[in-house]
Amino acid sequence: PADFPDWHQRLTVAAAQSQIPTLSTDELAYAAKLAWRNNIRCIGRLHWRALQVRDLRHLTAPDEIFEALIDHLRVATNNGAIQPLISIFTREEKNGNFLRIINHQLIRYACYRNGQALLGDPQNLALTDLAISSGWQPPFTRSAFDILPILIADHHHRIHHFSLPRDPAIVLEVPLSHPDYPWFERLNLRWHAVPAISDMVLDAAGLKYPANVFNGWYVGTEIAARNLGDVHRYNLLPIIAEKMGLPTHSDRNLWKDRAMIELNHAVLHSFDQHGVRLVDHHSASKQFLTFTSKEHAEGREVNGDWTWLVPPISGSTSPLFHRSYAETVEKPGFFYCPWQKP
Amino acid sequence: PADFPDWHQRLTVAAAQSQIPTLSTDELAYAAKLAWRNNIRCIGRLHWRALQVRDLRHLTAPDEIFEALIDHLRVATNNGAIQPLISIFTREEKNGNFLRIINHQLIRYACYRNGQALLGDPQNLALTDLAISSGWQPPFTRSAFDILPILIADHHHRIHHFSLPRDPAIVLEVPLSHPDYPWFERLNLRWHAVPAISDMVLDAAGLKYPANVFNGWYVGTEIAARNLGDVHRYNLLPIIAEKMGLPTHSDRNLWKDRAMIELNHAVLHSFDQHGVRLVDHHSASKQFLTFTSKEHAEGREVNGDWTWLVPPISGSTSPLFHRSYAETVEKPGFFYCPWQKP
Ligand code: HEM
Ligand code: HEM
Repeated sequence: PADFPDWHQRLTVAAAQSQIPTLSTDELAYAAKLAWRNNIRCIGRLHWRALQVRDLRHLTAPDEIFEALIDHLRVATNNGAIQPLISIFTREEKNGNFLRIINHQLIRYACYRNGQALLGDPQNLALTDLAISSGWQPPFTRSAFDILPILIADHHHRIHHFSLPRDPAIVLEVPLSHPDYPWFERLNLRWHAVPAISDMVLDAAGLKYPANVFNGWYVGTEIAARNLGDVHRYNLLPIIAEKMGLPTHSDRNLWKDRAMIELNHAVLHSFDQHGVRLVDHHSASKQFLTFTSKEHAEGREVNGDWTWLVPPISGSTSPLFHRSYAETVEKPGFFYCPWQKP
Repeated sequence: PADFPDWHQRLTVAAAQSQIPTLSTDELAYAAKLAWRNNIRCIGRLHWRALQVRDLRHLTAPDEIFEALIDHLRVATNNGAIQPLISIFTREEKNGNFLRIINHQLIRYACYRNGQALLGDPQNLALTDLAISSGWQPPFTRSAFDILPILIADHHHRIHHFSLPRDPAIVLEVPLSHPDYPWFERLNLRWHAVPAISDMVLDAAGLKYPANVFNGWYVGTEIAARNLGDVHRYNLLPIIAEKMGLPTHSDRNLWKDRAMIELNHAVLHSFDQHGVRLVDHHSASKQFLTFTSKEHAEGREVNGDWTWLVPPISGSTSPLFHRSYAETVEKPGFFYCPWQKP
């Protein structure tokens, strides 16, 4: 990239000599921004230049890393004015050993078996089991929104667990209410402010960083349509439709569609009311088009995964629905690893 | 296929002898059903065995074909109890010449330039221009829902135009109303009952049939979300939102999403009220899962184009949203041809 002509040259020379060069802090920061800009699934890429990067490659001990994760959440949360931020810890060692954060995101809600039923977020059933078997004690009174501890697997595969403090400067949550439906707030729903992904590998300049965490702010639909609405997640549409007085015996009266809109409306309303930044899916789509124009103006193509970019509700109202994207994956980038699943 | 062991064998032998075998009427019918079953974009494939096939390969004259298209619409419409039907006309000649229907669908609404604005369905602007330059006279008082003539290009590229009769047994239309909004019906919206695609090539057993027409019934979202809702089609969401009293200055209050639901509701309601078959997107998704199970039970994989199968509204409420499909295209099949665009 133009900004760092040295970097690519140094890499090429190093590769020819079978060496791995060390990135400067500035180079690492730039690589992280490129990794974001390259991600074909992310609709929030307009802001890639604004990513703040914490170079914490010197941190290798689980308890030090946990302290740094708390700092990450505090800086990212910013009392609601959420900032895009990445923290990068110790990289993969030469012998292939590595330390990793097991949680998919830093803030995750537990899931408990309750006879045949589940209490909490079904996505985190395995993570909850692992937390408990690692020594974590669930709260005495279990709820649908208990925050799981951070689990870190060290270089020797030992699991360390750390509880997040109950401090809204660190773990900010928004209780959900609806401007027109008083009963909504009595459903006792909530969601956390910062989506901080902690289980993807940053692959930059020939090196892998399995221990890193990055966050932006939420799109409303991620919380409402997917986390709270999906049948295999909190599955709240039937109860919301019932409270709205919609008959649910036939899908043809669009009860799912109507409950979906109100749930989305509640999330947007509640985050606004609590001064917590999140973007609606229409604005996110527009911002993505601005990103595309800017990239084109700089002579770059924008790759994309249509199935992830198009919002999960009102798809065809998004301008992205009517475009198509090449799914080319480039590096630097963020990648899944099979061993990252708990 | 098991049902016609002869067919494949005959084809193989014929191919070895550089001959093109003629399909029997039964074989042609079976090939058409397979072409439907193979289509990766069609959510309605559960019903593939029920396709009725009219073998009209002997028809080569434009006026005979037009008469047959009228019959097709009458049989398909079936007074509202719409039947999946395909009519197959003369095939591509050995010298590469062919006859084709120019219209994308048999029933299409005209589009007129009105200063800077457009009246009608913008998708059919070029088709309308072509119809007029071929000698068609638009009605004296132009409306947003004027039915275009059928344009047939003969083997010598001459264009013939034929007006469809104003007979609801042939061109059935449904005026749109909304059970809760009296103003809705005063928008004077309507849509036709039968989606009869007439510009795709049936490719079966080594032969191409550019002149054919097939139809199922509509999914509600095709009419409401796409045809009436798309910004580059009738673009009705702003006017519906305005009538609903929703402020449209910010997308964040979900006015597009709300107007979208009511438009879909109106389409489902009006078709039901007029006894015209159409399926809602939730039931269509469920039926597609049934199709998938049945195919698996018979040892076949189901290919699919996720971006077309997942409905254009409330995407993540469809079980198809949470699955993935291989996009393998197989023959017999229906294909686009570059020359099919007017
Ligand atoms: C600034 C606000 C941001 C918004 C609104 C945003 C939005 C989104 C959304 C909606 C998704 C799809 C998530 C899903 O459906 O599960 C996504 C995926 C993704 N985003 Fe962003 N994002 C933002 C910031 C960031 C940042 C700061 C990074 C990294 C530095 C990032 C990297 C990614 C990656 C790697 C994925 C794919 C995750 C996967 O494959 O599972 N995003 N983003
Ligand atoms: C029986 C009810 C049927 C339903 C509910 C149905 C539904 C659909 C829908 C929703 C689409 C996507 C259309 C779009 O977004 O533009 C589609 C595409 C398609 N369907 Fe069906 N369909 C039915 C019957 C049929 C029949 C009878 C055939 C052929 C024999 C067929 C062949 C196709 C083909 C070829 C496409 C792709 C069109 C293209 O690529 O532009 N369908 N169908």
